[in-house]
Amino acid sequence: MVRKKSMKAKKSEVLKTLQNLGKTIYGQLLAGEFPWVEMPSRSTRNIRYDRELRQYVLGDKRIRRVSRNIRHIRPFTQLIWLADVAHQLIEMGKTSTLRDIYYMAQAYDVDFSDQSESDDIITDLETLISYAREDFNIFPEERSAIYGDLTIEYTVPRYEGKRINLTIHPDGVMIGPALATSDFIDTSADIVLCIEKGAMFTRLIEEEAYKKFNAILIHTAGQPPRATRHLIRRLNEELNLPVYIFCDADPWGMHIAQVIISGSANAAHLKELTTPDAKWAGVWASDIIEFKLPSERLNELDLKRLKELERDPRYAEGIWQREIHVFNRIQKKAEQEAFSRYGLTKIVDDYLPKRLDEMKSY
Amino acid sequence: MVRKKSMKAKKSEVLKTLQNLGKTIYGQLLAGEFPWVEMPSRSTRNIRYDRELRQYVLGDKRIRRVSRNIRHIRPFTQLIWLADVAHQLIEMGKTSTLRDIYYMAQAYDVDFSDQSESDDIITDLETLISYAREDFNIFPEERSAIYGDLTIEYTVPRYEGKRINLTIHPDGVMIGPALATSDFIDTSADIVLCIEKGAMFTRLIEEEAYKKFNAILIHTAGQPPRATRHLIRRLNEELNLPVYIFCDADPWGMHIAQVIISGSANAAHLKELTTPDAKWAGVWASDIIEFKLPSERLNELDLKRLKELERDPRYAEGIWQREIHVFNRIQKKAEQEAFSRYGLTKIVDDYLPKRLDEMKSY
Repeated sequence: MVRKKSMKAKKSEVLKTLQNLGKTIYGQLLAGEFPWVEMPSRSTRNIRYDRELRQYVLGDKRIRRVSRNIRHIRPFTQLIWLADVAHQLIEMGKTSTLRDIYYMAQAYDVDFSDQSESDDIITDLETLISYAREDFNIFPEERSAIYGDLTIEYTVPRYEGKRINLTIHPDGVMIGPALATSDFIDTSADIVLCIEKGAMFTRLIEEEAYKKFNAILIHTAGQPPRATRHLIRRLNEELNLPVYIFCDADPWGMHIAQVIISGSANAAHLKELTTPDAKWAGVWASDIIEFKLPSERLNELDLKRLKELERDPRYAEGIWQREIHVFNRIQKKAEQEAFSRYGLTKIVDDYLPKRLDEMKSY
Repeated sequence: MVRKKSMKAKKSEVLKTLQNLGKTIYGQLLAGEFPWVEMPSRSTRNIRYDRELRQYVLGDKRIRRVSRNIRHIRPFTQLIWLADVAHQLIEMGKTSTLRDIYYMAQAYDVDFSDQSESDDIITDLETLISYAREDFNIFPEERSAIYGDLTIEYTVPRYEGKRINLTIHPDGVMIGPALATSDFIDTSADIVLCIEKGAMFTRLIEEEAYKKFNAILIHTAGQPPRATRHLIRRLNEELNLPVYIFCDADPWGMHIAQVIISGSANAAHLKELTTPDAKWAGVWASDIIEFKLPSERLNELDLKRLKELERDPRYAEGIWQREIHVFNRIQKKAEQEAFSRYGLTKIVDDYLPKRLDEMKSY
């Protein structure tokens, strides 16, 4: 197991980074300067797809936010206030959400005209300090769950140092701030299976797929929250586990896999939310044919989405192009649960073993 | 603690009921009769609100489904097939979903034109045998979570007899088939707090609200799935714990509370999905005024919904009428997170203690 730094060590790095930001601002003030910050520009013209890194990244263009400029005073003040809040959150060991931050600002008479403005400043802080908002304790609402033989050690207050094994509860445990910031201690797993639908997640636990395939199962609950995407990356990177993603066979399912693998354009300023080596392992359009799955016609919205994906650089190659082609040809979609047509165990007995075997050569 | 029957005993009751249904059909066949079943009618004219039971119930009208009648053969066959599947599911200790059942039917050449038809037959089986579909192992997709000092004992295969305490994981554990069918062993809790939003659930765990109020916390994730509503009822009934429900201050949040308390018209044939003694404890429309909460204007959809609730018999009295009146007057709504305006701990330090104290006299 590659033990990178512990999650606790990371938190103190972020804390130090925020303190340095504060010191810089103080230094500027003491030197009689109008304080300012500089960071990469997040304008669309500065976002490009990096084929090496296999994710969107920011280009070289940088922007300055200078408090001397009257148009900059507002976002500059908001940003510094947020950095202070982030610092407090980490020091107190509390977490918060995008929505909370919007409301908290009102108590400080920091004016955000709506949540999209405060969300934007949070992204600015991510860009400025090169850490994801989860690293400064602003978490998405919990939605995903995990199950499998992985022992973790918590770093959150009151649970710090405690360990649990993630087979403790057969319905799965939530991926929230505590799990997302825990250290990985031990696992016997060989792979990670990410599953879009709760019904399939439950099915794989019941059918003991986690034993059969030595797998850690993750229920993404649709497009996984960022904290879950980061967790998937850590499982891949720290534990060297290959990651396979199973979604519905439709453009939306395909895109869930794509975002886990290569992220999204609006997180181009961050590097730790992608898992470039993760594989989209199904359900493919071609599976609809091969396994004679019950299917429905692609509707207008599906077709429109498919057209968009066709032009997306992340879909330019290999399996993505092949399957987009099949979708276009058969004009059909199928759900993960469609395998139930062949009994509840078909997916575990036939489909997954075959697919996971094939994936070794992808 | 009122230990009703164990969840395992209940399963064998359901199994026996299904077997008796089978025997009845066989008996009819052996007697040379066209087989038939009889059950309460679920037509809207046979649904009424029962003020004693504080939920919708079915009236006395009954219907027969007779296989001699050519129009009945299809739903009759579907129903008997489903009863067989339900029997298999329980015997094998497997769970399934509404969607799974729809797909499984195709393997048996049992024809459902779409999922709404198979869902309908599942409701027929509930009506016929007077058990909820969760009792015959057809579960909703997991979504809710739970946290607090409650020790449970599993009844599902492989985990049977194992116990965990629901403080084991600080992000909460999922409420799925395993938790929903577990027996309650021990608790030090005095109350149950149901919370609409994941952010508030996380907040209350972080602020140790579960200790401060001796509470079991349930994250309903919006309108809770039926398995969660049933779990809430069991916490109330078996452990004698008062249940308090906290939602956003808007017509939708109010209705989440209402459905937990008194159920919905389309589950009028079932008695174990409601918690009539549960209380809607906030966030009220009047809290928006009292706590000067950041708020937004009710939009057209909200106002339309409010009008509907005003005419709903479940809203005919007391606090419901009072708060509908306030909503109409102030035309505003607020989220649970709005308390963050006064800092992250306001809701735990001031609002909840005050409210829970007031609730004793409601």
